[in-house]
Amino acid sequence: MTQQVEAHMSLSLDGFGTGLNQSFDKPFGDADGEALHRWMFEDVENNAAEIERVIDYGAFIMGRNMFGVGEGPIDPGWQGWWGANPPYRAPVYVLTHYARPTLTMEGGTSFHFITEGPEIALELARQAAGSRNVAIAGGVSTLRHYLNAGQVDRLYLSLTPLLFGSGERLWDGLSAELKAVSARHTKYTTHILYEPVR
Amino acid sequence: MTQQVEAHMSLSLDGFGTGLNQSFDKPFGDADGEALHRWMFEDVENNAAEIERVIDYGAFIMGRNMFGVGEGPIDPGWQGWWGANPPYRAPVYVLTHYARPTLTMEGGTSFHFITEGPEIALELARQAAGSRNVAIAGGVSTLRHYLNAGQVDRLYLSLTPLLFGSGERLWDGLSAELKAVSARHTKYTTHILYEPVR
Repeated sequence: MTQQVEAHMSLSLDGFGTGLNQSFDKPFGDADGEALHRWMFEDVENNAAEIERVIDYGAFIMGRNMFGVGEGPIDPGWQGWWGANPPYRAPVYVLTHYARPTLTMEGGTSFHFITEGPEIALELARQAAGSRNVAIAGGVSTLRHYLNAGQVDRLYLSLTPLLFGSGERLWDGLSAELKAVSARHTKYTTHILYEPVR
Repeated sequence: MTQQVEAHMSLSLDGFGTGLNQSFDKPFGDADGEALHRWMFEDVENNAAEIERVIDYGAFIMGRNMFGVGEGPIDPGWQGWWGANPPYRAPVYVLTHYARPTLTMEGGTSFHFITEGPEIALELARQAAGSRNVAIAGGVSTLRHYLNAGQVDRLYLSLTPLLFGSGERLWDGLSAELKAVSARHTKYTTHILYEPVR
């Protein structure tokens, strides 16, 4: 099977993946990131397949605000939000304007800081993933970029009935046409699989 | 079973139930109302239960822009969008600022123009419905009003992967807390049932 590029995103009903005013204490800013991801942490059994799928990739791509916070270079001591042994267990390509040495973590995760733009990052991720698939891990603007570029094969959306009211809305500026393929409801969220229409 | 107040709404992914610039030629304004309701008209068999449910009520409430168009009194000759024999087959209470005689249509539908506000309209609809349920038929701002007032027991949302970009967004100004209860995917839309949290 051809290598696929897949994306996962938890969104509030009003379309926000994250709130304003992100900080190192609040990775989701003013939005209730905990409530948005409750399905992952408080209803593990019923969402086992979806949780497993989120990290089942040969390589990942993320925006710099998913790795860290703010404009400018990130403190070289910052190693991301995930502790010493992040769940990715594969190369993670972080889009940034600031070069930085590769960060090798426990368990097989490595963070590679890519200053050459999203096309190069995707190429590197595709190569690194080999026969496995590539994940666009987020955040919202990174996902939107790859959707608009026609480079995402599947979008796994987890739509949770929260209203954030402000933040980064996936739909604003999205030009990709989507087709829903399946939906499954669990206690805290509704999983909907979308495929971009080519 | 106690009488329930239920609402049905077809929404684009970005949360719009209708577009800007509504006119008598374009009931959904700039939004593609046909695509939004394709599940109802072009995939009838697979959505039979949902279609039946939309009109299975003892009384309906709708905002004036769901019955007609624009500010000011509506042309007395205007009888709504549904032809001589509308699908409601029950009393429909239209919220308006302009009194107008009741309009009796074929098949059991009658349009009652209520100038005393949404509370009175709901009371009248509840009485008229008898042992049957009451539907908030739309549009977006009418639904939002009743949701925020805590008067809706169930919200049947049909979420279709369209991006309208502008129009009336259900989520803007919604203060009701919702809980998703079930989800079902058909070819053109994803039906999600929400219940407001009391």
